[in-house]
Amino acid sequence: MEGLDAHLEDLVIANRILAHENVVDGFGHVSLRHPERPDRFFMSRSRSPELVTCDDIMEFDLDCNPIDQRGRVMYGERAIHGAIFQARPDVGSVVHNHADEIIPYSVTKSPIRQIIHTAGGIGHDVPVWDIRDDFGDTDMLVRDLMQGRSLAKTLGDKAAVLMRGHGCTVVGKTVRDAVRIAIYLMVNARLQTEAMRFGDVTFLSEGEIAATAEMSASPLAADRLWEYWTRRSGYKNP
Amino acid sequence: MEGLDAHLEDLVIANRILAHENVVDGFGHVSLRHPERPDRFFMSRSRSPELVTCDDIMEFDLDCNPIDQRGRVMYGERAIHGAIFQARPDVGSVVHNHADEIIPYSVTKSPIRQIIHTAGGIGHDVPVWDIRDDFGDTDMLVRDLMQGRSLAKTLGDKAAVLMRGHGCTVVGKTVRDAVRIAIYLMVNARLQTEAMRFGDVTFLSEGEIAATAEMSASPLAADRLWEYWTRRSGYKNP
Amino acid sequence: MEGLDAHLEDLVIANRILAHENVVDGFGHVSLRHPERPDRFFMSRSRSPELVTCDDIMEFDLDCNPIDQRGRVMYGERAIHGAIFQARPDVGSVVHNHADEIIPYSVTKSPIRQIIHTAGGIGHDVPVWDIRDDFGDTDMLVRDLMQGRSLAKTLGDKAAVLMRGHGCTVVGKTVRDAVRIAIYLMVNARLQTEAMRFGDVTFLSEGEIAATAEMSASPLAADRLWEYWTRRSGYKNP
Amino acid sequence: MEGLDAHLEDLVIANRILAHENVVDGFGHVSLRHPERPDRFFMSRSRSPELVTCDDIMEFDLDCNPIDQRGRVMYGERAIHGAIFQARPDVGSVVHNHADEIIPYSVTKSPIRQIIHTAGGIGHDVPVWDIRDDFGDTDMLVRDLMQGRSLAKTLGDKAAVLMRGHGCTVVGKTVRDAVRIAIYLMVNARLQTEAMRFGDVTFLSEGEIAATAEMSASPLAADRLWEYWTRRSGYKNP
Repeated sequence: MEGLDAHLEDLVIANRILAHENVVDGFGHVSLRHPERPDRFFMSRSRSPELVTCDDIMEFDLDCNPIDQRGRVMYGERAIHGAIFQARPDVGSVVHNHADEIIPYSVTKSPIRQIIHTAGGIGHDVPVWDIRDDFGDTDMLVRDLMQGRSLAKTLGDKAAVLMRGHGCTVVGKTVRDAVRIAIYLMVNARLQTEAMRFGDVTFLSEGEIAATAEMSASPLAADRLWEYWTRRSGYKNP
Repeated sequence: MEGLDAHLEDLVIANRILAHENVVDGFGHVSLRHPERPDRFFMSRSRSPELVTCDDIMEFDLDCNPIDQRGRVMYGERAIHGAIFQARPDVGSVVHNHADEIIPYSVTKSPIRQIIHTAGGIGHDVPVWDIRDDFGDTDMLVRDLMQGRSLAKTLGDKAAVLMRGHGCTVVGKTVRDAVRIAIYLMVNARLQTEAMRFGDVTFLSEGEIAATAEMSASPLAADRLWEYWTRRSGYKNP
Repeated sequence: MEGLDAHLEDLVIANRILAHENVVDGFGHVSLRHPERPDRFFMSRSRSPELVTCDDIMEFDLDCNPIDQRGRVMYGERAIHGAIFQARPDVGSVVHNHADEIIPYSVTKSPIRQIIHTAGGIGHDVPVWDIRDDFGDTDMLVRDLMQGRSLAKTLGDKAAVLMRGHGCTVVGKTVRDAVRIAIYLMVNARLQTEAMRFGDVTFLSEGEIAATAEMSASPLAADRLWEYWTRRSGYKNP
Repeated sequence: MEGLDAHLEDLVIANRILAHENVVDGFGHVSLRHPERPDRFFMSRSRSPELVTCDDIMEFDLDCNPIDQRGRVMYGERAIHGAIFQARPDVGSVVHNHADEIIPYSVTKSPIRQIIHTAGGIGHDVPVWDIRDDFGDTDMLVRDLMQGRSLAKTLGDKAAVLMRGHGCTVVGKTVRDAVRIAIYLMVNARLQTEAMRFGDVTFLSEGEIAATAEMSASPLAADRLWEYWTRRSGYKNP
């Protein structure tokens, strides 16, 4: 496959990988900024990521209006994606998930910090956004662009933002970047939780955080992972 | 399928889903109030939920007498279901399980509290029933309607009740509701256990608990989950 | 199948179940006292339980000598089984395993106590045997009848004994009993470990321990489990 | 298969086993010293271990130069292997991995100590190497022989060395030895982490550590495991 089709296939594979690696379950979603029209993005109709196929992909403008809805039900939280694409021209893909390992860091005072080199790309710090701060009592979903923009503001120029009692949102230049960082943010949380049982933990230094971010995004590491995760997900070229 | 058959198929699928998501194992059961005769309910003959098929479904009156037993062995604890259907006309389905994550909250002083928005529907508090309080030393099974009514009394108007050293019982308007709440009660327990390691936890507010209960029961969330869980369970329309 | 063949089939199924439920891994074994000759027992040649078939079953006298070895390699620790069959005429089956959940209770001062009704049969207390007490530094295997008898002495009239830094040994009247108790001893350890995080735990009372032992061994509970575990193990009648 | 081919098949199987037992994931690698030319070693081209086949195996000299590269991408960290083969003539195989259970012991002051007899071979102590000590801020990969030699120096004459915020490296006389020790180092870490929750832990004595190392390497134990792990990995003789 070439051009747009290859990008859209990556988006479908991303759904399958995130499901297979337990980053998403029935909920969660991943989007792709249109590679030729930066004012548009793609994501599945409302469906659990494990089940997403090419036919489920819909196109949206950055205000999250569907280009050609044809009666399809849409994710209720697509404003997460639209608002971040508006705020961050450098971002080509957004992953939103509720991975188990992440939640404790969203509801306590323990910050996530990089503990292993493979988590390169999660950044120096991972801020926590609480929807209650700006919007009071809600059903905790990011239902409109105002809420999405509040989230994007807390994300700032970072790679990931936790959402209190909800999950997290991760961004990347490409779908593959965003998937990789989402998976390793989860792995890092799991390892950190275990290590903190034993008292003081040696986290990566600032220099190591920067160097491992670059290393993890290199083809040597990233291509090997993508091949591995794709095969494990059971995805077959249709 | 239509009418009663569609309801009964949901009951079979519910058995498979609860098994596949590790809410039930060899034990546990789920029931459906007869949609046309509220003085009757359906549940499987005595069999592990993973193995239940349409042919295993039996019909009972609310005193738990079988309508047409034909020699089939019945669950020893069907009084859980009968007693709750008697006490709660709003309830259309009951799930009883021993999920690992639930047990610690049944034998200690830590109450379950909602920590994540997806657990909408578990309610403001989840009471704990101890069979020893009313009945002294027993084999801990709910073997008759007196015991079932004691349990139903502690359940009150709530969505779930823990049972000391035993498990929990969850109710819903429909089979799909009860299954969803049973799964997310388990998920909530798992996340809460992890989060409590880190000290003070921010739980959902009263307003958030109410709003997420409504959101979680909405078709946007609930239908996506049912499709997802059904597919994962491997259930095939016969 | 009937008579001895049916008993031997249960022994093969027991191997598969214990492997599938993660009670045993590459190591561990299960034996059956000869139903017609109480001075003999059966167990597999030296092989991981997941791989055991009918053809692997060997016969031994209670001093652990093979009746008809035909060059087959034997488990190094069959003295566990022989010594217990000698000491306990009431025992018809022995399971030895290294389940992860058990080990912490074998190397610390925390005793296993019954926390859930389904663990009926594990008994009032589970003693811990340390091979170092009687035999000093060894490779920790129970390599001869003297070591086996020391273990059997600590087991006494109980249902299970932990082995320091090694695992546990569980007995039952039948293969199905021993398998069930071995699985739920593991489940009980897992639940107890989680519950103890939260401070004081309410364990079962003496009366409940006795009543749940009887209930768990009843056909209503035990047959449902055996059907369930057999199906899950993938065992097919050859 | 015989001779070199049999050794290379063991290397392929080792990749599959390490992946299936969750010692390695997308990353990690295993090498084999050439059985006839001790100045050479074999390992896969850059590929996730789960996917490695015979055709992926490349040959290197001990300075990590490929003998016949043919354009294949190589692991970035093969210096771990070359440096250890140079320093340790007794070593015939090296496994490098990032197993979850290991990481906490690499970033805290808790040392790994043998807690179960099956972990025989992990040694009296498992040192921790921090790349920052000799090389300051890096991307934490062992990218050249100087870094590899620093790691080999900390390994000394031991069986395993942890790498801070990274993982561990394990050595053995044969591929089967290295695989077995890598798996049980992970298992030991898992069990130790759980046991340490309960306060003081009884670890193996010096004499037991030595005796279990010998026992674990014996054919009775090692052959049973290799058959078991190979079958579980799904490896099929091509």
